[in-house]
Amino acid sequence: MISQINHIGIAVKSLENHIAFYRDILKLKLLDLEEVNSQKVKTAMFKIGEVKIELLEPTSEESPIAKFINKKGEGIHHIAYETDDVVNEIKYLEEQGINMIDKIPRYGAHGTKIAFLHPKSSGKVLTEICQK
Amino acid sequence: MISQINHIGIAVKSLENHIAFYRDILKLKLLDLEEVNSQKVKTAMFKIGEVKIELLEPTSEESPIAKFINKKGEGIHHIAYETDDVVNEIKYLEEQGINMIDKIPRYGAHGTKIAFLHPKSSGKVLTEICQK
Repeated sequence: MISQINHIGIAVKSLENHIAFYRDILKLKLLDLEEVNSQKVKTAMFKIGEVKIELLEPTSEESPIAKFINKKGEGIHHIAYETDDVVNEIKYLEEQGINMIDKIPRYGAHGTKIAFLHPKSSGKVLTEICQK
Repeated sequence: MISQINHIGIAVKSLENHIAFYRDILKLKLLDLEEVNSQKVKTAMFKIGEVKIELLEPTSEESPIAKFINKKGEGIHHIAYETDDVVNEIKYLEEQGINMIDKIPRYGAHGTKIAFLHPKSSGKVLTEICQK
């Protein structure tokens, strides 16, 4: 069961060029910077209310984020919903006929367990479920 | 001052084709359907935690949402941050050198007062501020 939005992922070419807008202008709290090797990205995570904003910079041309930027340009990449049981949520979604990119959860930023739904199954919006 | 994310706007060709995913699969609460004439859109508003998901269907080819879909396809359109004083927030943002699309607030869904920042000033992400 989904309880809230955990974060919104935003694809950027360079964290450095975008951190100031969120930290200094919008005054969001910068939680941390992290490198997620499995996704070939560096992330900057901000907090606002119960939600986080996750800036994603590709560290390789092979990164899914690099491919996204090449195709669509910089911008909002995905919405992540929080669940307390990602394995069970994957099972539920598949039972509903949702096509999962990740049938088995993998690790995202902050050691979260995450899985992506295929955008064809989620109205063209790349949708993630994640468990702390 | 911004306190939380109020909603995430998602551009769709047809509300009807997308409501089931959010209401029946993700189990978000459907708050209401509304037509916002000033923006030439019909909206479906869902709630999850403190945040809303706003599906936006254009009612005219002149709608900014129709133009977005023609250019980029269906998908996430904007992030809206909540403030208790949108006029003061516009003033603050302009003082910070942000280019506002709306220098004077206009009315959004649910009678909110809203203003958009120009994406050139907000890292390519269409960003809205809104006041209940």
